[in-house]
Amino acid sequence: MLIHDLDTPAVVCDLDKLHRNINEMHSRCRDVNIPLRSHTKSNKIPEIAAMQIKAGSIGICCQKVGEAEVMVAGNVTDILLPYNIVGATKVERLLRLARRATITVAVDSVDTAQGIADGAKQFGGSVKVWIELDTGGKRCGVQSPEAAQILARQIVDLPGIHLQGIMTYPSRPEAKSFLDETVALFQKDGLPIETVSLGGTGVEALSKALGATEHRAGSYLWEGLDRVRSSADLSDERCPLRVITTVISTPAPGRIIIDGGMKTFASYPPVPYGHCIEYPELRIYAMSVEHGHVDSSASAHHFKVGERLTFIPLHQEMCLNLHDELVGYRGEQVEVIWPVAGRGKVK
Amino acid sequence: MLIHDLDTPAVVCDLDKLHRNINEMHSRCRDVNIPLRSHTKSNKIPEIAAMQIKAGSIGICCQKVGEAEVMVAGNVTDILLPYNIVGATKVERLLRLARRATITVAVDSVDTAQGIADGAKQFGGSVKVWIELDTGGKRCGVQSPEAAQILARQIVDLPGIHLQGIMTYPSRPEAKSFLDETVALFQKDGLPIETVSLGGTGVEALSKALGATEHRAGSYLWEGLDRVRSSADLSDERCPLRVITTVISTPAPGRIIIDGGMKTFASYPPVPYGHCIEYPELRIYAMSVEHGHVDSSASAHHFKVGERLTFIPLHQEMCLNLHDELVGYRGEQVEVIWPVAGRGKVK
Repeated sequence: MLIHDLDTPAVVCDLDKLHRNINEMHSRCRDVNIPLRSHTKSNKIPEIAAMQIKAGSIGICCQKVGEAEVMVAGNVTDILLPYNIVGATKVERLLRLARRATITVAVDSVDTAQGIADGAKQFGGSVKVWIELDTGGKRCGVQSPEAAQILARQIVDLPGIHLQGIMTYPSRPEAKSFLDETVALFQKDGLPIETVSLGGTGVEALSKALGATEHRAGSYLWEGLDRVRSSADLSDERCPLRVITTVISTPAPGRIIIDGGMKTFASYPPVPYGHCIEYPELRIYAMSVEHGHVDSSASAHHFKVGERLTFIPLHQEMCLNLHDELVGYRGEQVEVIWPVAGRGKVK
Repeated sequence: MLIHDLDTPAVVCDLDKLHRNINEMHSRCRDVNIPLRSHTKSNKIPEIAAMQIKAGSIGICCQKVGEAEVMVAGNVTDILLPYNIVGATKVERLLRLARRATITVAVDSVDTAQGIADGAKQFGGSVKVWIELDTGGKRCGVQSPEAAQILARQIVDLPGIHLQGIMTYPSRPEAKSFLDETVALFQKDGLPIETVSLGGTGVEALSKALGATEHRAGSYLWEGLDRVRSSADLSDERCPLRVITTVISTPAPGRIIIDGGMKTFASYPPVPYGHCIEYPELRIYAMSVEHGHVDSSASAHHFKVGERLTFIPLHQEMCLNLHDELVGYRGEQVEVIWPVAGRGKVK
């Protein structure tokens, strides 16, 4: 089967570009001597996770327990959930999963840790735990080195909890003193501090400089968002994920309508939604739920109904998350159809 | 099972409110004496489509062939696809579907119509066809009454095509002369003009005044977007769709983090993403992929990790489209778990 034979809209992935992005990222991390843990929330496909591990990743990240279940079922054996796992149902699933793979979770409160401990008393099992620091990302995380120390003391002896280190997101230069002071306080107290996990795409060297023992990144796979946004930095060659669409209407001069809208490309971020490979001068100026509204006024080409147009979606992770299948191709040949197994696993 | 027993994030639907919205919309259309065709792209659940038909809808709309296949499999027998169906693969599916149900499609070009005719020659079968007019919506559609007349003449005798009328979206007062002139031209030529289909939520009386023989609407089901956006018009009572979330972190004063982000709520439109039922003073000020960042500074309540918060999502259709299941409840009791059967059917 050739990609031209696929009905549209089709979400496809250039396997050569995918492999190169994976290899180059692992190479960059080796260059700065920091182990990479690949975040798979942006692909949700166990076979891609296996490629990342084969390329050198020491394990993967998932964002939700349901995603981790999919990855363990796909034979991945070391998973970090950089997320507070809260609620008895999820804790039970987490602990059952931890019997089949090495599972690490982030914790930023006694409540989260106590929930895991309560589950462990009931179901047995244990997980590795890293305390999450809010070093400026302003999402989850304790607010100071002292708060990290206090939390570590409170949870270090809880059942089911193997306190092992700290984590933050994203890596920022301003995090240095927070990290250093936390490590020092843990060492002073004899608290476990084997791992300092930092993350973010493009900041592996910074993570190393900040004292990380491992670096987390995931969007390197698609190289999408920022590159496509910033046309100065745009290179089709670095973006493996594409959406093949069909022109379904050419209603008026300068306007063509394609068969993919918000439910194909994702609705965020807005304009230009995607970048056209064949005619870079095209601009998706609006989106309905199932229609893409394209301004073709800058193009000399005469577009026809039935013509196929390939776009690099702007928010590749959100785009892939809308679809049940990802078609991998090399040249023009379809090589693999991957179920997006972790899609929709928000629990 | 009670809704409090559901793990989070859970997408749930208050069945009493859903039924009331369905009944009130059909009642409004009866009041202005216009038949309603319910658009199901916003629910994608055959059992909800059946409720709409039971309440009086003369049929449904789907946006894609894959959605229509799901609805026909769910025993729906009259479906409009207000969409140019382009490409041999889709046309074959369309024509096969038309053997099992009454199928109508929109067409705005000879190319689209010829594609259907080519398929009909090969596979047999036929569909009803309405010519789509661009009366100001600036999406698909022919640009003038004369263009509609020319297209009608070109396609009226094609095999597999039962030309039957015209359609436009949305209903706008400015469309009157376009519609009237088109009807007159069709009548003058003896072209079929049994149906004039208009659409849009809240404009059924306008459709009637513009001469529509049927009105299309779908988002009346959730009554979401505009009502939640405009706080002046907000009434929880009219919004059946909700997302139950759990507080997973209370990292700093005035900030709480919930376990649903872009992959739970959808990423468009932005702030405030959703409206909290229990604490309307909360404001989702940012979203990560799997985290909701909530400003709690206006609330006197002391939020705790593990607490559940219910939100009306801002773009209900895009939200539901991310999930595999919709839980219907009455009071606190779970009554039904619907697979969102049409989700992801973008082809």
